[in-house]
Amino acid sequence: MVMRSVDLRSDTVTRPTDAMREAMCGAEVDDDVLGYDPTARRLEDEMAKMMGKEAGLFVPSGTMGNLISVMVHCDVRGSEVILGDNCHIHVYENGGISTIGGVHPKTIKNEEDGTMDLAAIEAAIRDPKGSTFYPSTRLICLENTHANCGGRCLSVEYTERVGEIAKRHGVKLHIDGARLFNASIALGVPVHKLVKAADSVSVCLSKGLGAPIGSVIVGSQSFIEKAKTVRKALGGGMRQIGVLCAAALVALQENLPKLQHDHKKAKLLAEGLNQMKGIKVNVTAVETNMIFMDMEDGSRLTAEKLRKTLEENGILVIPEKSSRIRMVIHHQITTSDVHYTLSCLQQAVETIQEPSRN
Amino acid sequence: MVMRSVDLRSDTVTRPTDAMREAMCGAEVDDDVLGYDPTARRLEDEMAKMMGKEAGLFVPSGTMGNLISVMVHCDVRGSEVILGDNCHIHVYENGGISTIGGVHPKTIKNEEDGTMDLAAIEAAIRDPKGSTFYPSTRLICLENTHANCGGRCLSVEYTERVGEIAKRHGVKLHIDGARLFNASIALGVPVHKLVKAADSVSVCLSKGLGAPIGSVIVGSQSFIEKAKTVRKALGGGMRQIGVLCAAALVALQENLPKLQHDHKKAKLLAEGLNQMKGIKVNVTAVETNMIFMDMEDGSRLTAEKLRKTLEENGILVIPEKSSRIRMVIHHQITTSDVHYTLSCLQQAVETIQEPSRN
Amino acid sequence: MVMRSVDLRSDTVTRPTDAMREAMCGAEVDDDVLGYDPTARRLEDEMAKMMGKEAGLFVPSGTMGNLISVMVHCDVRGSEVILGDNCHIHVYENGGISTIGGVHPKTIKNEEDGTMDLAAIEAAIRDPKGSTFYPSTRLICLENTHANCGGRCLSVEYTERVGEIAKRHGVKLHIDGARLFNASIALGVPVHKLVKAADSVSVCLSKGLGAPIGSVIVGSQSFIEKAKTVRKALGGGMRQIGVLCAAALVALQENLPKLQHDHKKAKLLAEGLNQMKGIKVNVTAVETNMIFMDMEDGSRLTAEKLRKTLEENGILVIPEKSSRIRMVIHHQITTSDVHYTLSCLQQAVETIQEPSRN
Amino acid sequence: MVMRSVDLRSDTVTRPTDAMREAMCGAEVDDDVLGYDPTARRLEDEMAKMMGKEAGLFVPSGTMGNLISVMVHCDVRGSEVILGDNCHIHVYENGGISTIGGVHPKTIKNEEDGTMDLAAIEAAIRDPKGSTFYPSTRLICLENTHANCGGRCLSVEYTERVGEIAKRHGVKLHIDGARLFNASIALGVPVHKLVKAADSVSVCLSKGLGAPIGSVIVGSQSFIEKAKTVRKALGGGMRQIGVLCAAALVALQENLPKLQHDHKKAKLLAEGLNQMKGIKVNVTAVETNMIFMDMEDGSRLTAEKLRKTLEENGILVIPEKSSRIRMVIHHQITTSDVHYTLSCLQQAVETIQEPSRN
Repeated sequence: MVMRSVDLRSDTVTRPTDAMREAMCGAEVDDDVLGYDPTARRLEDEMAKMMGKEAGLFVPSGTMGNLISVMVHCDVRGSEVILGDNCHIHVYENGGISTIGGVHPKTIKNEEDGTMDLAAIEAAIRDPKGSTFYPSTRLICLENTHANCGGRCLSVEYTERVGEIAKRHGVKLHIDGARLFNASIALGVPVHKLVKAADSVSVCLSKGLGAPIGSVIVGSQSFIEKAKTVRKALGGGMRQIGVLCAAALVALQENLPKLQHDHKKAKLLAEGLNQMKGIKVNVTAVETNMIFMDMEDGSRLTAEKLRKTLEENGILVIPEKSSRIRMVIHHQITTSDVHYTLSCLQQAVETIQEPSRN
Repeated sequence: MVMRSVDLRSDTVTRPTDAMREAMCGAEVDDDVLGYDPTARRLEDEMAKMMGKEAGLFVPSGTMGNLISVMVHCDVRGSEVILGDNCHIHVYENGGISTIGGVHPKTIKNEEDGTMDLAAIEAAIRDPKGSTFYPSTRLICLENTHANCGGRCLSVEYTERVGEIAKRHGVKLHIDGARLFNASIALGVPVHKLVKAADSVSVCLSKGLGAPIGSVIVGSQSFIEKAKTVRKALGGGMRQIGVLCAAALVALQENLPKLQHDHKKAKLLAEGLNQMKGIKVNVTAVETNMIFMDMEDGSRLTAEKLRKTLEENGILVIPEKSSRIRMVIHHQITTSDVHYTLSCLQQAVETIQEPSRN
Repeated sequence: MVMRSVDLRSDTVTRPTDAMREAMCGAEVDDDVLGYDPTARRLEDEMAKMMGKEAGLFVPSGTMGNLISVMVHCDVRGSEVILGDNCHIHVYENGGISTIGGVHPKTIKNEEDGTMDLAAIEAAIRDPKGSTFYPSTRLICLENTHANCGGRCLSVEYTERVGEIAKRHGVKLHIDGARLFNASIALGVPVHKLVKAADSVSVCLSKGLGAPIGSVIVGSQSFIEKAKTVRKALGGGMRQIGVLCAAALVALQENLPKLQHDHKKAKLLAEGLNQMKGIKVNVTAVETNMIFMDMEDGSRLTAEKLRKTLEENGILVIPEKSSRIRMVIHHQITTSDVHYTLSCLQQAVETIQEPSRN
Repeated sequence: MVMRSVDLRSDTVTRPTDAMREAMCGAEVDDDVLGYDPTARRLEDEMAKMMGKEAGLFVPSGTMGNLISVMVHCDVRGSEVILGDNCHIHVYENGGISTIGGVHPKTIKNEEDGTMDLAAIEAAIRDPKGSTFYPSTRLICLENTHANCGGRCLSVEYTERVGEIAKRHGVKLHIDGARLFNASIALGVPVHKLVKAADSVSVCLSKGLGAPIGSVIVGSQSFIEKAKTVRKALGGGMRQIGVLCAAALVALQENLPKLQHDHKKAKLLAEGLNQMKGIKVNVTAVETNMIFMDMEDGSRLTAEKLRKTLEENGILVIPEKSSRIRMVIHHQITTSDVHYTLSCLQQAVETIQEPSRN
């Protein structure tokens, strides 16, 4: 008997569906380093249109999408970018904007909901025309949804206000929208409204959307032209990418409408977890497809103990800290998987907390 | 009637074959950013074994393969790399080793056969332990086959001698083997012998081998560990890359044995071209799948005129200079395509040279 | 009649004394880029000895001293440095560690006394052996005295504890000791005890010590060897620097013992200011030679109004914010200057606050 | 008895004269990081005027002058600079333009006279508006006089023609004029004519001019504004630099007129050397203050043997290669020193070549 497998480590672990595989199989392709792949053009155009931007560019990963965007906006040496101290770019992308791009980061505290204080952002801006003592602020980065804040959504209003600050100071705004569609669904707002204030957006195809590989960045025509050169310099120019773009086009068709189910299942899981003894979940903070499950002080539970027990039951999770586990729902997690997970966890929690009855 | 299409711009323009598409369709995959894709492991292991190295790593492009390799070997600030003044890394990769990697290039003249003078290499080495006035030489790069030199092969002997110089001075050796398999076939030498002296090799899967996307770098276990971090930093870490690796595994099976035919067709094309009036090809220099066709001084031929006429006949080529066209053979060019190209060109040459009979 | 001039903008504005000028005049010198200047050797050795380190190196500025130190400790690409969000390196040095050095900064909140929370420092360290997702922490930076925190001193105990954290994780410790001698005097502790835990220290000669130009960095022999190369690369290698080092040697002799007087005058000024209506100074926080003078909410005072009035009386200050002025005492400010400043300010405060009696 | 000391290692080894020392002693100074040093202003203005440029900036070294200039002209990531393969920037400045500035160098062969082939320069330019595959050429660098070519001068005509190429392609021109005054004297052309075509020039004060420390870069007002920021970022902003600038002003007054004597002495030395058995000097190539003395093949002479013998007589030189010694004349070398050197060398040559009479 094959053990059930429930992979909650991330929404990046999905396998391409049959429809995606067929699309890859039949994709019309050409050499995209020479700029000729027709399927890439279709995907890039469709994404640009959805986002309300002039143009799009397929890139190998969200990390590269962010790196290219920062490097294009901060193409002049001596640039500074303002971003959240808990955002993905600052925490999980190797410090690439500095170590590869030579851009100086100025971090602002990320609140629990993924926002940064507006006054703090404005106060941090340093004259983009430069000074002898300072680097010049050329970019502000937001992240929507905000992964390290548990998939919380930034509202249109908040984004607009950051955009106003940016414009007032001649600074650009980039949105790391790795999971932007999740925000759009959760807020009930079309994506183009969520990113209207942004000069560039990076969106992942291989997270909730379930495509096997790739992200798309969108922005003005001139932004995308510069982005192509940076992509090539980084080694992100690839050949017959139509095979990947075809899968992504299916993902948009197939999985975008299903994201709302992911959110419901996440809520279901969160509520179930929150009722367990020694476990705490901020259920109202579960706005999209992520759940942070905290072990209460004084309980005998640890993230590692639970991870191990879950793994024995075919359930994969990644501990965030010693007393926190992150779980992420994606389209290959069924409601039944959620119930199975809850049941396994319930048992694990009981066993760990009352280990020695006899 | 659909016009015949003969794409001689590069060996990067091949479309995935049916077998590759099926392989993509059926590929076993997992999240490779987390390090779990089983098909990637198979491809990386197979490539490492063929090259006689400890480990391999799939990367999105040859440019990234080279960039990562240079950045790993030159991980300490203040590094210099010795490389050919006509090599791909120096000429066609955006100067990325400097502009992204901060590595200083010291170029040596590339001879017509792609080699660099051995004494000049040795004289250029600056103490890798560093000095107050100099950067430290940490790497020598070779390119085999050498694209800008017309696909010429570096021999085992030459490579070994460069390797000896490198070792004697505590410097690493990287081989840009974008078309290494072509060299192996042309020389009748297994690839592992061609790269024995190298500390790292970058090999393209999407050139002569015909896979849609990707390259593999190989080297020691510790080199590959460091390469993984640099790949992630550059944004080259991708998710379910098994779909691409599966196609590449087919390419190795399917197209590797066919490279010799590419070389024969290239020779056939070269010989035919060389007999045309006003056109000169160094036939003996056509060692692999590339042909440089030069227009003689005083002829009325220009690269642009010929390109245009060829295009009208469905034949695509890229002019290298005003009087030189490069043609590249790949597995989707048939012998019949070669004859068709020769016949179209013969006519074009005649028309251009005697345009005004009446 | 020449107006009295009291320059409180910074302790960097001092003019060389007659003794320094004579020393420059008579200095024994040689070409220091070639490594031969004997007076530089004397100064570097004396500073190294005072600091309890193996070797020293003269550099053109404190900014370069810090930049070189960070670049030497973080010589491998992909390095991260932990430092205070309000420290000089992060705020006032052009972001050079990123934009020039390619080093990624991770900031920790600077408390009012210039310290960072020890637990926060330790939690921020990321495995210096590297990871695929993170840059590697290779350095922690402290600043003593801490300029943006008003010249507060870090204690031996605090420094030692940071040093222990660093050692435990294989991370280096650098101290930006631009005004380290002020801390030493204020705490009554010899400098070598204050920097015992540090792998490198940068100390300015042209601040409180009053030399016209230069800083010295100290550390192990191998640190200084690497520092020489980085200094040369940055263009900080200079020729007959003995003329500057001779002045610095006088400054050590002449002004070091006088720093205590600066601190007393600063206290005197702070106490006087604190008694003025609408003005607030945290007198106990005035530990060395700096005073932060805040205008109370609701008062009609602004930094700009006061600056202007003071300037009309020959007193120069730099507003820090709209309601804060920083004043810095140095050896060319007499007790009489302090009284004169207090008297001018008293009158200015009264005039501004009651502008329209009539 | 004190041994005579003749230091021919470089023109950087001069000691400040009494007049310079007095000038340092009496210099009017202020904090130049704040931009207030009046003597710096005088020197910068005078240099700018002499060069026919809008503004000037004092920098700690020629290396920094060049580095700043390249970084300002190539302030956008992805820049390429065209420069001679034997020029000081490429060979002796730590590869800083790449390792610190992230600029990609494209070298052109330096002819024996320090020029680069004009057609080769033009052919190397890559569209400064950028391309996907190439970095963008933004700068051409010349060196006048050319140190590694033995102090040869670039003519006004040559410089103008390079300037025309640069302008035609929208590329900037920088002249490393470390020894520009020597060229001016040797050619009998005012410096402003020699650099008319240049957008920036770096001139050393501490070489032939004999000032103890520093260089000045000149260019347009906006160039100098940007240069100030880069200088600060590199750590080249210094405090009371008036002491150094005062010495430099004296050097301009005192030594500029004497450079012609240096050239005559160099000629005298060259001619004397050339008559020695086994020694060859291209006397006509001795245009300024440098002499390359080559040992003929088959002679028993080596650079190291001669260096050692000379040192025993108090004469210091630096071997360039195993069979070449470079000698540099400066204002502290007298005609008598030249004769002394010739006489010592004559004896050394004889001794080495006929070591075993007995």
